[in-house]
Amino acid sequence: MIDEKLKSLNIILPNAPKPAGSYIPVVISNNIAYVSGQIPVKEGKVVFSGKVPTQQSIEEAGKAAKLCAINALAQLKASLGNLDRINKIIRVSGFVNSTPEFDQQPTIINSASDLLFNIFGEKGKHTRIAVGVASLPLESTVEIDMIVEIS
Amino acid sequence: MIDEKLKSLNIILPNAPKPAGSYIPVVISNNIAYVSGQIPVKEGKVVFSGKVPTQQSIEEAGKAAKLCAINALAQLKASLGNLDRINKIIRVSGFVNSTPEFDQQPTIINSASDLLFNIFGEKGKHTRIAVGVASLPLESTVEIDMIVEIS
Amino acid sequence: MIDEKLKSLNIILPNAPKPAGSYIPVVISNNIAYVSGQIPVKEGKVVFSGKVPTQQSIEEAGKAAKLCAINALAQLKASLGNLDRINKIIRVSGFVNSTPEFDQQPTIINSASDLLFNIFGEKGKHTRIAVGVASLPLESTVEIDMIVEIS
Repeated sequence: MIDEKLKSLNIILPNAPKPAGSYIPVVISNNIAYVSGQIPVKEGKVVFSGKVPTQQSIEEAGKAAKLCAINALAQLKASLGNLDRINKIIRVSGFVNSTPEFDQQPTIINSASDLLFNIFGEKGKHTRIAVGVASLPLESTVEIDMIVEIS
Repeated sequence: MIDEKLKSLNIILPNAPKPAGSYIPVVISNNIAYVSGQIPVKEGKVVFSGKVPTQQSIEEAGKAAKLCAINALAQLKASLGNLDRINKIIRVSGFVNSTPEFDQQPTIINSASDLLFNIFGEKGKHTRIAVGVASLPLESTVEIDMIVEIS
Repeated sequence: MIDEKLKSLNIILPNAPKPAGSYIPVVISNNIAYVSGQIPVKEGKVVFSGKVPTQQSIEEAGKAAKLCAINALAQLKASLGNLDRINKIIRVSGFVNSTPEFDQQPTIINSASDLLFNIFGEKGKHTRIAVGVASLPLESTVEIDMIVEIS
């Protein structure tokens, strides 16, 4: 069912991006899946890099956040086999590569939150943090990690 | 009992602040409640904004941290109905809007930690992270999120 | 067995460092242990301070990350009695004290990740976030916290 929902939203999950370090993308403990921090990578390349708002606009950074969320779902699909196993998105942590003055991180991470709600409906309503960080791996504009309840 | 404790400490929980984005304040999974990042909002307005120590003193930032913790408890009360359902504060994550030189984040987040210990006693003893970030939503001085075990 | 593995790797766990604030090092909920953020402290002193790459090289910062992981294990040993009780490292969060331009946080946190894999093997394969922050407590170069499944 989630696969059909993705199709209706024109979202194509990529092959799960490889981690940029010596760790793994998903760990399951009890009925909780933890997803490693995802950056806006597409076909092996960071496609949104630099700080908001000087090097990326809020709008572009929103696209970066959405791509991070899509990559997280790709990791979950690769690990779980089927996204229908997701009972509930528990937590989304959003880190935005920000200048010291930038303060609209929520607007950017909303692009990820809205996507999750559009895909999962009530099950996609999650808790969240959104903070501005000094820098991110490979100059990524956004990094997002997730905690998910599964069955 | 916790309500009486709050009264004896002259702490009045506000109405639960609305999230500054498209997500929800609390998600419960198994017997764990996750609280979204809380900023120092009072009656709909951020009352502690700017960086430590240039725009806010350590003392004022401590008040901000305390207010974030109070807002987290307000969210938990709205979600759980009764704070007596809290078995244990598991985790407090504290993000302090910091200049690149500022390094006394623990002193600031202690104001939140002390509050939780004063209210919950042994059940309030939690693990913690405290980091300095480049910027926070709505120029907030502090953002705090929590993970709590409930019954 | 983990104690022997540590010996074979020439790793000596220190006495568990005291938290730099009013909180506790480890909280256990259900079968999950949460470890507070650990900084690169040795015998009560921060031994790696300052930002990467201007004040600390990537190589030195990697040593800092490794020391943070060792301190986290020391906390777990003090709390659990025996590191053989660790079933699985679930999550490692790595915060690197970074200049706004620095983007190789994964390389640094890899030193912690590699250590955990060397000690715990398959059980040590974890999910991870790595971000660059504006500043850290006591000017620490790295802060790392962990979530672990225990038996």
